Order: sequence, then C-alpha cells, then structure tokens
Amino acid sequence: MKKVHNFYAGPSILPDYTYEETIKAIEDFAGTGISIMSISHRSKEFDAVMKEAQSLMKELLDVPEGYHVLYLGGGASMQFAMVPYNLLNKKAFYLDTGAWSSKAIKEAKLFGEVEVVSSKDNGYTSIPRGYTIPTDADYMHITTNNTIAGTEIREDLSSPIPLVADMSSDMLSRPVDVSKYAMIYGGAQKNIGPAGVAFVIIKDDMLNKVDRAIPTMLKYSTHVEKGSMFNTPPAMNVFATLQTLKWIKEQGGVKEIERRNIEKANLLYNAIDSSKIFVAKVPDAKDRSRMNVTFVMKEDYKELEAKFLEFATAKNFIGVKGHRSVGGFRASIYNALPLESVKALVEAMNEFERNV
Amino acid sequence: MKKVHNFYAGPSILPDYTYEETIKAIEDFAGTGISIMSISHRSKEFDAVMKEAQSLMKELLDVPEGYHVLYLGGGASMQFAMVPYNLLNKKAFYLDTGAWSSKAIKEAKLFGEVEVVSSKDNGYTSIPRGYTIPTDADYMHITTNNTIAGTEIREDLSSPIPLVADMSSDMLSRPVDVSKYAMIYGGAQKNIGPAGVAFVIIKDDMLNKVDRAIPTMLKYSTHVEKGSMFNTPPAMNVFATLQTLKWIKEQGGVKEIERRNIEKANLLYNAIDSSKIFVAKVPDAKDRSRMNVTFVMKEDYKELEAKFLEFATAKNFIGVKGHRSVGGFRASIYNALPLESVKALVEAMNEFERNV
Repeated sequence: MKKVHNFYAGPSILPDYTYEETIKAIEDFAGTGISIMSISHRSKEFDAVMKEAQSLMKELLDVPEGYHVLYLGGGASMQFAMVPYNLLNKKAFYLDTGAWSSKAIKEAKLFGEVEVVSSKDNGYTSIPRGYTIPTDADYMHITTNNTIAGTEIREDLSSPIPLVADMSSDMLSRPVDVSKYAMIYGGAQKNIGPAGVAFVIIKDDMLNKVDRAIPTMLKYSTHVEKGSMFNTPPAMNVFATLQTLKWIKEQGGVKEIERRNIEKANLLYNAIDSSKIFVAKVPDAKDRSRMNVTFVMKEDYKELEAKFLEFATAKNFIGVKGHRSVGGFRASIYNALPLESVKALVEAMNEFERNV
Repeated sequence: MKKVHNFYAGPSILPDYTYEETIKAIEDFAGTGISIMSISHRSKEFDAVMKEAQSLMKELLDVPEGYHVLYLGGGASMQFAMVPYNLLNKKAFYLDTGAWSSKAIKEAKLFGEVEVVSSKDNGYTSIPRGYTIPTDADYMHITTNNTIAGTEIREDLSSPIPLVADMSSDMLSRPVDVSKYAMIYGGAQKNIGPAGVAFVIIKDDMLNKVDRAIPTMLKYSTHVEKGSMFNTPPAMNVFATLQTLKWIKEQGGVKEIERRNIEKANLLYNAIDSSKIFVAKVPDAKDRSRMNVTFVMKEDYKELEAKFLEFATAKNFIGVKGHRSVGGFRASIYNALPLESVKALVEAMNEFERNV
C-alpha cells in the first residue's frame, strides 16, 4: 500500500482506529453475525451505538443539561436550510467569514431578513471584530472555521441573542463552552467521521421557535423526540463516528487533542513565517485556522507554485493544493493527521526552498 | 462468527461482494493509499465512483435518454418532502397502500391538495384497483412495495399524469419500464446499499415545475446540475451501493435477480399456503410482495406465535418478527438473501408444525 500524507480538506484523514473498527463491524457487528450495513436500526445493538454516540459527544464537550445531540443525514448543507426553517421568525444575524457562511446566508434569506457583517472585502483573510449584534434578531450565526480562507473563530463569543455555530471543520479540535451556544452543528467529514452524517447539538428551548409548517424531516423536534431515530439513520456512518469519539477519549479528550493541534499548527505556521518564498494567507496569527493552513508563494516566486505542487505530489503529499477559488496551497491538519506528516511537509518545504 | 439467516426488513442483507469491496476500500481506496472515508469527493478517483454508480443504474434498468440519476443523503423520508416541494403546484394524487405512503401523503399536504385512494380499510392487505386518476393533479404517487403489510405493485402503471414511485424496498428486484415513470426514488438500505443514501431517477422535464422558493439542498435541479456532487455526498455509502450494482450485473442483471426472487417467494408462500397453522396476511397472490412475506398463525393457533418466534430465534433466524404495528411474522427476502435461507426457514416452519 502506497504511503501518503493525507492533507485533504474534507473528507479527510480519520484515526486508524475508526477504519479498523468499521472494518470489523462490516464483517460482524457486535457479535451478531450480521454486518453493520445490514442490521436493523431498531435492533438493540444498533440502538446502543446511537445512544453512545450521543452520550460520548456530551461527555467529550462537557455539554450541560438541556441540550440534545442528533446525528442526521444530508450534511451541513442541509443544516444551512434547517437552521432558518426552524429558528428564523423575522430576522437573523450572520457573520460572513467565507464560502460556507455565504451559502448559509443564502438559505436564511429564503426565510426572512438577514443582517450580515462580512470580511469579504479583504478576501476573508480576517475575522470581523467590533460589530454590534442586533438584539432584535432571532439568532446569530457563525462559521467557526473557514476551510477555504484558513481563518478560525476559536473564542466562544458572548452573544445577547442565541448563538448558532457551524463547527463542521473544527469540531472536537479543542474544548468549547457549549453553554455559550444555542446550537452547534456540522458535517462529520473532517474531524468526526465519514461523509454522510451531520451532528447537531441543540438547546431544548430552540425547538418549536417558529409558526411556519415545516416538513417532518426538516424539523429538529422530530429528531429530538425520536432520539435521532425518526427514520433510518446513516447507521454505518454513525458507527464510524462513534469510533472517532472513542479514539478522542482514549487520547485524553479534547484538551489533549487541542495541545497536539497547537503543536502541529505552530510548526507549520512558523515554517511559513520564516520562509523566504512562502507566505501565509492570513496575516493575523489570532485569526489563523489550526485546521486549514493556507499559504502562497511570495510575489517574486509566484511562478514556482505549480513546481512546488508537482514536487509535493511526487513526495506523496496529497491535497495540498489550495481551493480552486483562492489558489496557492492549503494543508489541512485535522485531529487525526499525525505530527510526523506536518514535520515531513515542513522538511519538504525547506528542501524545495534550498533548491530555489 | 455466528451463522445467521438475516431476514431483516431494512437495513437488510447485502451481497458479500458489497461487504468485501467496501472493506478493501476502507483500507486503501483505488490504490490511492487513502481510505474511501478520507478521500476528497473532488478527487478523480471518487468522481469515477459517482459517475459509474449513475451509469450502471441506467444500464441495469435500461433507463431511457432524458433521465438523471442522483444519490442523495437524508433517505426516502426526505424525499417524501422533496417530491411535493418540487412537483406539487395545486394538487397531487397518492395511492395509500401502507405506512410509508401515509408518511409521504402527510408531507404532500403541506404543499397543496392531496387526493387519496387507500386500502387502509382492509388493513392495507390489498392494492387498490379500479380507481380513476384525476387528470388535473400534478402527479400520481405510489409506493411500489409495502414492507409492513407485505403488498407490492409490480405492474408498471399507465398514468395520464406524471407517475412518481417510491421503490425503496423493491428497487432492482425486477425489470422496470422506466419510461412509464416521471420519477423513481428510494432509500438504499434494502436491495441497494447501506442506509444513508437515497437514489433518485428523475426525468428532465420534472425539474423546475413550481414557482415556490426551494432551499438549495431540497431542489432536484441543484443536484442534477452538479451531477449529484453539489455538496459532499455520502461517499462510502455511494461506493458500497456501486458494489451492489456491480454484483447485480455480474449475476446476470435484474432479469436473473427477478427469477431468483420469484423462486424464493414461491417457495415461502407455497409453504405458508399449504400449512395448517400459518396463513398469509395478503390473500390475493397478485398483491403479495416478493420482498416481504407477511404471515400469522391461524386463529386456532394464535397462542403459538411467541413460541414460534422463540423457536426461530434459537435457530438463528433474525428479523422474522412482524412489524410492531401489525404483529405476526415477516420474512424479508431481498435480492441478496440466499435461497438456502428461505429453504431453511421453510424447513423450520415444517418442523415446528410437525411438533404442534
């Protein structure tokens, strides 16, 4: 098997434990003699998987009483519509910090007025600050990590209105004060599990906030009432997600995961900042993502970008090309990416630079 | 590993080929050195999976020109809302043949008038006939196979208005004249693949039929325009689905699959019909499902139901308990269930009967 360093932005690298346990469960799930693909979701064995995936998420993030954990199909893109469908009566306030925020805003506009504060003018390379949160809005929406621009809101904001956060790409990468949020959601396919399942942590008082008729599957209360088993859940995906949660716990929890993520991010940003040919896309260190490190060649070396990509590919660094909308490079260094992959990338960057 | 006969109604048994190939792809997908869980859906390797899953579905069902094949998250339950969201202007016509139809009708009523013809009065043990299709309705909706009652519409109906069919539980179990349908959809988790992906076959002229604003993810045209890759698809689930499609082709296609399904269904229904203690729930042979065989104990033997379930469980027949809403027994005998499992069940029924 080819040995590669997987820097994909998502779907992205997961712990070996997740792969191994999922393989075992496809062969024989929980000693039933039946594959995880082929067991009734109403069986007691699968019911235990769903319940543990909910309780372990609560344990890892120290979720206070009064919150529900759901695992739904459709991905975060479906949540972009479900959030306003369920929460927007008249007006919502969105921070626009990149492509994903913009997509969420587009859906919210179908349901009411949307007030937006954006960092689009500087190419989304910073996080907006110093804005006033409108207290007449039903909720405030943020995207904590922006995979394309490479910025991140790591601070748990204090909002006078309910705070809703899309944490698709930095969920479980650090401790979060869940009590500051009315809702946290995201697609699993970065730090949590395979594509095909979205997680939702929703506060009880956010259910039934609007009068409009909502299709059953799009209503959070449907899924809360049925323990995330109203319809057949993406069972294998939830199973794999649970394995990742177990791995995080086994590693020492989100505090230890954060320590490793800081170490990896510092290593890579330091290498970029001290390079004569590379430069980080996000100038201000406090806005820089620990998950997606975006960088380009300095003006004088622009013509070397294609050459570096070729060089990196030849050394089996996969997924270091920047998003097509911004160009340059992006190294996604999620929870499961080993430190050695970051070290290897830094060495390769140094080697390339020496030969310029 | 425990040897069991998997008669679950869904998620249900899939071919060994699907399990084996998915395991290989979790270890190393397409020689990339990366797991199918962790490869970018924008990679050429995954793009090829999605395209082949679409083209092979078309090949197996001989889908005419002008239809699109989609693989979406959210399951068939999400389709219950998406169908009227996208197709219902004023009125729709639904055949109510059981619990799934009823759920679909509930969602349609959020979007317009719904005319219903139902077999509820006889406990859904037959398929309605002799009704008039209202030509002023935007579409007619049917559920071809009813997993709980155990009935099936195998005839490709001729409808003067666009015909939409939920084929969740008999898709690819027999040839279908797709040209008779405007749309065919379903959850994968019976004959096709693991839970977490829904298939949609939709005729080009069914896109953009209504004026209402539709959230992006709920709009069929979104997914058609992006080749079912608007957002991150449930990649591992689509991969597993493709393996099942390959297996069906390798077995000789849907015609051969149908031959086997007829053989299995005849064996089991004949055993029930000739039993002195068991009786089929669906009296008319032409309404009987080839996928879900529902039966009960005759009046004089009712008290033996729990005993038979215990007996069957001890012999490792899994999932033969009838749905909680109807009781009795249900043997789901989908494509991948081997003939030997049906033979074993018939032998067990005979053995139990001999000892009554």
